[in-house]
Amino acid sequence: MHIDVLTLFPEMFNGVLQSSILKKAQDKGRFTYQLVNFRDYTVNKHHKVDDYPYGGGAGMVLTPQPVFDAVDAIMKGKESKPRVVLMCPQGETFNQKKAEELANEEHLVFICGHYEGYDERIREYLVTDEISIGDYVLTGGELGAMVVMDSVVRLLPQVLGNDTSAPQDSYSTGLLEHPHYTRPADFRGMKVPEVLLSGNHAKIEEWRKNQSLQRTYQRRNDLLHDYPLTEKEKQLLNEWNTNK
Amino acid sequence: MHIDVLTLFPEMFNGVLQSSILKKAQDKGRFTYQLVNFRDYTVNKHHKVDDYPYGGGAGMVLTPQPVFDAVDAIMKGKESKPRVVLMCPQGETFNQKKAEELANEEHLVFICGHYEGYDERIREYLVTDEISIGDYVLTGGELGAMVVMDSVVRLLPQVLGNDTSAPQDSYSTGLLEHPHYTRPADFRGMKVPEVLLSGNHAKIEEWRKNQSLQRTYQRRNDLLHDYPLTEKEKQLLNEWNTNK
Repeated sequence: MHIDVLTLFPEMFNGVLQSSILKKAQDKGRFTYQLVNFRDYTVNKHHKVDDYPYGGGAGMVLTPQPVFDAVDAIMKGKESKPRVVLMCPQGETFNQKKAEELANEEHLVFICGHYEGYDERIREYLVTDEISIGDYVLTGGELGAMVVMDSVVRLLPQVLGNDTSAPQDSYSTGLLEHPHYTRPADFRGMKVPEVLLSGNHAKIEEWRKNQSLQRTYQRRNDLLHDYPLTEKEKQLLNEWNTNK
Repeated sequence: MHIDVLTLFPEMFNGVLQSSILKKAQDKGRFTYQLVNFRDYTVNKHHKVDDYPYGGGAGMVLTPQPVFDAVDAIMKGKESKPRVVLMCPQGETFNQKKAEELANEEHLVFICGHYEGYDERIREYLVTDEISIGDYVLTGGELGAMVVMDSVVRLLPQVLGNDTSAPQDSYSTGLLEHPHYTRPADFRGMKVPEVLLSGNHAKIEEWRKNQSLQRTYQRRNDLLHDYPLTEKEKQLLNEWNTNK
């Protein structure tokens, strides 16, 4: 996979792209990237990339010209059409399903604004996807792009080793994870539940399933709507509902 | 505000902490930080910070000792108790209200895991808040911590200039933003809506409110549940519902 990132702050990406899974994916030849400062493409003689909004109002708006020209330059000589992703608060809320969808692409382009709004023509004629990573206000699209990149690139074949693939994938199983414990069995008087020390694998499995369901019930009831409950799980939920 | 970040990958933070709003907030004396590699606190002779899970299973688990000891070192000599935030998929979903809540604190501590799960005792006895930035799987807690830091620090007094405060705050008004346009009025044949060029401020205002409501209706119907609709807005929504 190749990812181009259009940003006015390319230096923001260095720490993240040079560490952890994104670095590993590059080392394994699964992922390449280019940071494109679209200010380099402006034809404005003062190198400006924003301008006052038509109709008045506070704040500046990113002009279409440098963004369109930067994307034109990226696509030049390429036959395939990339997905062009705009990071913005108005976008669809990012989730694991969307990450899996994007992981099937060969080429992604991210457009990151900063402070300003985007000229609507960028949204309407240039981008294929608008994504928001959550219902909070960020200073720019850069952190959102890094979040999407991390979640997508880790899904590419051979990027994760076997040791690291399964465990934390809460959203893949549909329930939140059960609690984990490791040594020591007693840390400053805080003890590991007895069942985990019992060696009884059937009981451990049952405890874990129960904890996983209970944690989801308590914290993220919404996730249970789409989860195929067994009869036993339905019974447990009924008990918890009654004892509330 | 002071923020301590416990992480095994401190280098991931450099680009983000040295740019944009987080840099500005430091320059203005509103925000200081410390990156703490909690591997420095392990008493394990091989410098390990994780171990096999009790009860078996794939994946490793972060041991409590280095995390508790790193937090003890941070709190040493301090009277106030910081909020200790664990970044994890099981946490409450981060939103703007939570950002505003955290922005009132003097001292935050973020704990970032990587790959592994956390020993449950960290969750139960050390942390005050568990936060997830969204329903997607990330490789570690670092990007989540940066997201929360950006959204919180930009809310601190004097951090944002007047020019950049209001415009993008979609989640503060309760509706998604209306479209923005800037020069040129005709870019490659793509034109700015006539009303914005009309100079009629009342009409422009009406168009913007209408667009804002319509965009929210089409993309994020869920946001309308908590929004105090005027009679006129209710009427518009009814029309759109009828014409669907």
